[in-house]
Order: sequence, then structure tokens, then C-alpha cells
Amino acid sequence: MQITAEQAERVLKASILKAKELGVSVCIAILDSGGHLKAFHRMDGAWLGVIDVALMKAKTSALFEMETQTVDNYSKAGGDAHGLELTNGHLVTFAGGIPFKNVDGHTIGSIGVSGGTSAQDYAVAQSGQSALKG
Amino acid sequence: MQITAEQAERVLKASILKAKELGVSVCIAILDSGGHLKAFHRMDGAWLGVIDVALMKAKTSALFEMETQTVDNYSKAGGDAHGLELTNGHLVTFAGGIPFKNVDGHTIGSIGVSGGTSAQDYAVAQSGQSALKG
Amino acid sequence: MQITAEQAERVLKASILKAKELGVSVCIAILDSGGHLKAFHRMDGAWLGVIDVALMKAKTSALFEMETQTVDNYSKAGGDAHGLELTNGHLVTFAGGIPFKNVDGHTIGSIGVSGGTSAQDYAVAQSGQSALKG
Amino acid sequence: MQITAEQAERVLKASILKAKELGVSVCIAILDSGGHLKAFHRMDGAWLGVIDVALMKAKTSALFEMETQTVDNYSKAGGDAHGLELTNGHLVTFAGGIPFKNVDGHTIGSIGVSGGTSAQDYAVAQSGQSALKG
Repeated sequence: MQITAEQAERVLKASILKAKELGVSVCIAILDSGGHLKAFHRMDGAWLGVIDVALMKAKTSALFEMETQTVDNYSKAGGDAHGLELTNGHLVTFAGGIPFKNVDGHTIGSIGVSGGTSAQDYAVAQSGQSALKG
Repeated sequence: MQITAEQAERVLKASILKAKELGVSVCIAILDSGGHLKAFHRMDGAWLGVIDVALMKAKTSALFEMETQTVDNYSKAGGDAHGLELTNGHLVTFAGGIPFKNVDGHTIGSIGVSGGTSAQDYAVAQSGQSALKG
Repeated sequence: MQITAEQAERVLKASILKAKELGVSVCIAILDSGGHLKAFHRMDGAWLGVIDVALMKAKTSALFEMETQTVDNYSKAGGDAHGLELTNGHLVTFAGGIPFKNVDGHTIGSIGVSGGTSAQDYAVAQSGQSALKG
Repeated sequence: MQITAEQAERVLKASILKAKELGVSVCIAILDSGGHLKAFHRMDGAWLGVIDVALMKAKTSALFEMETQTVDNYSKAGGDAHGLELTNGHLVTFAGGIPFKNVDGHTIGSIGVSGGTSAQDYAVAQSGQSALKG
């Protein structure tokens, strides 16, 4: 089971709405569970540099099936896998990436948001996640 | 001037509609004039391999400000720039990539479509181009 | 649905047996449908250079859901997508890669074999495919 | 002298057995002394992200002929070669990679394991090492 085009559109729409509400310009990347691009949107005014950050957040969450900031527990200095962020062509380990799971708990894709503070990015990603379930 | 988020959404919507009409599952990539990702959509059923082809078609059209199949006139055997397709991290030189120009003739972005025959991909990309102007 | 570890082992065993019967030393790569490595075996005596060829054959078949030599119909000079082999970090378009499909026709993975002639590689890959179904 | 296909299979089998005993789903990569892939196995349920981690652990141990966590003594802040992990297309410096040496002390290959805690990965890699010697 993979995220569908219809689901991805719903997620994008809700995420953009939330970003506008927060007054931030972000990039939003949606991947399938294999880490392959399904949908993407760059809001007007978002830095070019956050295109890659959004993509890498989504990739990190797809490949490790956890939120990006959770990966930091492992990769940080003193963590069990310090330096993990150097693998897989680099990972992003601050908030804004969330894996999407279906009712059976299987990962069907992920979202990565970047452009605001990590708290704002996370809030936008969560809105996308809620839209998927709704 | 760069393609806006609103324009990119309009282009995506028209392209998807055309692809459904043709009965093909495609990936559609929209870039700005700097070759940076603005929007992307992968229809359900599209091969994973065409994600990159759509992105590379759009990149080729953004970087050279011409349709992808036109680049082939230069890069093909006997052409004035044979092997050009090996530059810029590789180009794609068959139909499906179109640059977007504004009324002043300035490039504001590009579209790349892949998943059908090159004629189908081109038709989908042209629908996107028409929606931009409309 | 993805190829399982048990299935991958069965495929590897049958492929190695066939290669020994043919008297060739090959590399055998098995990927899931997302193009991610599931299992790999390099027979003693195989060239180091065919490690990548086997991996790329399997990737080509996973990403385009067709046998590698079929991709050549599109990518060759005069084909509808001439130069396609330059996408996706390069493809391999001679025989030895086969997609694995389940009874519903969905791709669950792929095999890539390299080390002999392309006819030998193809025969080894087919033995793997038969073992999956058996 | 390089690790043989027969040895690699024996190592894989013992490693998988140990991982199952520990109740973890891991990837196991086996390289020769030149850092070239010899054999690989991804257990069902292992994160996609640990494919690369296992490969990089094995690479690190092959290229420096030491266990991955030992490399950290050099690469860590204050170490004699701080930043070493950024070389060779990146290294992994937490436990789970072990070089294989023959009776003469020559490196003949390496193993990299990832998917559990680094202690679990290390235990699995050690089981593989024991099987090689056995």
C-alpha cells in the first residue's frame, strides 16, 4: 500500500492552508514508502535552499519510519548511532518530517516540510498528516 | 519573474486532466527559470523510473529555454554540439519538456512530463502550457 | 507487497545453480519494487566491474517494470525515448534484468544478473524468476 | 586472499540466526578486502534506511581494517583525525562493522550490520565473524 495521488493532493492542500495561517512560506514534499517523490509544492516566497531540506526530511521519515526529530535521538553526540545523519546521502534530523502510516501500522509514505522554524514546519506537517487520516 | 504557485497549480491540474483523457499515467514536474522545483505530481500507476525523466525534461527546458526535442538537433550525432546531453548532470532530449515564457518572451519556468509515449507526454505538457497562458 | 527474504533466498539459490551449470561466474542482485537492495551474491571469479552492472540491471527492471532489453526498444537510436538510459543515474538496457510480478500483475521486486554473455545472464535471471513462482 | 562465496554464505546464515535470536530485523553486508560487495541480505521488517548503514559499516571496516567503533577514537572531537568520517564518501563510526582477517592477520573482507541497537548489531556481526572462523 502506497499513498495515492488523491491522498497526496489532500495532504498538500491542508499543509498549504496551515502554512498560510502561520504566515510562513514553505516547501512541502510527499514521498511514497520507498522514498520516491509523489507530490511537491513550493509556496511563493520560500527560499530555494529549503527545497532540498523538505525533500530530505521526507526521505528521512520514509527510510526510518519515524519523525525526523526522533532520528536525532540516535544520531546526536552521545547517541547510539552518532553520525547516522551522514548515511543515505545525508539525513535531516530536526522537526518537519513525519511518516504516514495506515490503520495497520504500515508506512505508506511521508511528508517533509521546510521554510519556517522547525516548530512551524512540524505544525504544517502535522496538518498534512491529519488531512490524510480525515 | 518566476512562475507562481497559483500558476503551477493551474498547469498541474490541466496536465493531469489531459493525461487522464489520453489514458496515461504520468509524472509532471514544474520548475522555475533557475531549474528549481516548484511543483510535482505523480499519477497513480506511473512507473517509478519516470519521476527522474520528468524532472530531467523540465530541467533541460529550463536550462536551455527550448523544448526538449529541439535540444536533440544540437546533441545528436552530426549535430553542432554532439554529446551536449552529457552536460548539466545529463539532459533529456526527447519530447515532453517545454519552457514557459511570459508575454515579453522571458522564461519563467518549465514543465516536464513522462510516462506515456513522447507524443503523449508532449500533448500533456502542451495542455499545461495552455493553462498557464489561459 | 514486496519480495520476502525467503523468496529472495530461493531466487538466489536457483540462479547460482543455473550459473554453475552454464559455467559462468556472475553477480546476482535482488531488489524490492522500490529499487531497494534485498539480497546480493557475487560468485567467486566474477569481475568486480559486474557488481554495478547487476545492481543497475535490477534497478532498471524495478523502476520501469520491464526486462532490461525491452527498455532498449525505447532508448536506442531512433527509439521513442532515445537517451532514456541517461536518466535515473543511468540504466542498463541489455539482457539480464527481469521484474518480478505477483499473481495480480503487481511488481514486487526484480533481479539483475551480470558476468556472462547477456544471453547467459538472461538465462540465469530466468531461472531465478522460475524459482520465485515455483 | 579474499573471502569466498561459500564463506560469505556461512557468515550470512549465522548472522541471520543471531538476529532472529535477538528479535531484530537487520541488514547484513559482506564486502571483500577491496570494499567491493560480496553478499547482502535484508531481513523482512528492516527499515530501508539501514541498507546504506550496513553497507557503510562494512566499507568502513574494510577500508581501515578495524571495527567501526574503533574508528570513532580517531574521528571524534579531540581525536587525532577529527572529521575522518567525512572521507571516503563518508564512514560510519558506531558499532556493527568488523573486518575479517585470516590466520596470517591479512584482511580478507568485512561485515556490516544495521537495524538494531549498535550493541545488537555488533553481536550479530560477531556471530558472523565466528562462523567464518569456525
